Amino acid sequence: MKAYKIPEATVMRLSIYSRYLHQLMEEEIDTIASGDIARGVGVSSAQVRKDLAYFGEFGTRGVGYKVEELYSHLMKILGLDKRWSVILVGAGKLGSALALYHGFLDRGFHICTVLDIDEKLIGTKLNGVIIENVDVMNARIIENNIEIGLVTVPALSAQNVTDRLVESGVSGILNFTPRVLKVPNHIILRNVDLSVNLELLSFNLGYHYKR
Amino acid sequence: MKAYKIPEATVMRLSIYSRYLHQLMEEEIDTIASGDIARGVGVSSAQVRKDLAYFGEFGTRGVGYKVEELYSHLMKILGLDKRWSVILVGAGKLGSALALYHGFLDRGFHICTVLDIDEKLIGTKLNGVIIENVDVMNARIIENNIEIGLVTVPALSAQNVTDRLVESGVSGILNFTPRVLKVPNHIILRNVDLSVNLELLSFNLGYHYKR
Repeated sequence: MKAYKIPEATVMRLSIYSRYLHQLMEEEIDTIASGDIARGVGVSSAQVRKDLAYFGEFGTRGVGYKVEELYSHLMKILGLDKRWSVILVGAGKLGSALALYHGFLDRGFHICTVLDIDEKLIGTKLNGVIIENVDVMNARIIENNIEIGLVTVPALSAQNVTDRLVESGVSGILNFTPRVLKVPNHIILRNVDLSVNLELLSFNLGYHYKR
Repeated sequence: MKAYKIPEATVMRLSIYSRYLHQLMEEEIDTIASGDIARGVGVSSAQVRKDLAYFGEFGTRGVGYKVEELYSHLMKILGLDKRWSVILVGAGKLGSALALYHGFLDRGFHICTVLDIDEKLIGTKLNGVIIENVDVMNARIIENNIEIGLVTVPALSAQNVTDRLVESGVSGILNFTPRVLKVPNHIILRNVDLSVNLELLSFNLGYHYKR
């Protein structure tokens, strides 16, 4: 295996390629050229080849890639050939939407524990999971072997919840709040401020930053 | 102005810096060194300086950056010194959560039109906006000067809705569905598959791709 550091943009594209390959599998297409993947997802075919080259040789010259084989390679690379146990803290509007979002489970992320502090929510069900009090966080993380935490609490509680998730032993945290959070070095933190994506759009629409 | 192409990762970090500066403004901090910004958001200080250098000279050697001045510069660069009109198509669970998400309006994105095809939803209110039938899409985009569309419909309707948004004149589209969408070259499309972020996490947790 090559020892290159894989750029995050490459990993993101692998995720997109894998979805596109899944679409192709549904359409019962067996083989595909890098140029067709490129057109399908809107990048250059050189980019597709470069991204895949990080992980070895997949295609056959003149034939292209076997759709199913490439798909399962990509899923393995992305760590999606297993099921991940996920805890969601904060069952408000955004938290509920995430818990109900099919896309997570489709890709192997199983939200098995949902916590809140709101007495009106505790005891009710969200996508089949009973919402529990945050007090049980540590116990649930241990008994369910939870590795990933989603933080969807109000911004002011975000650091506190994050500290508790870290103490309880999760390895990765997705922060959906606009708060900048601090975690120890061994924890992988990703910020999914939803408006960042809108801001990338507004930046690119370029109404204001004219060169 | 320099004519470099700005890397997307830089734009994302500018967005994060701007939030952090906003936190500092709330704490009434006037000036800050690049090293403190770096520690606050978890990148190297060389990275902070490099990111900001794309857009000219902001700081003063030995003094650092004026928090408020840098903040307003960044907001201008990000295209956030104006209010954007946004249409949301698909008022299901995810769409409702997005419509209710304060983070958008806080950064200047105003969801002024919400459409759906579900008769049970049409006529009800979402965050003060009456949900209307998709038939009015073209009219609303024109009368509200809408530039950005959020697509939160089921995957199978996503391309169709996108085509209609493009025909109606939006310039940018955020696709929240797992579907790979096609748009003409002049349209800026971003995919916000929420599970991509989880996949970047699972990739980095590195349980399966061991070098």
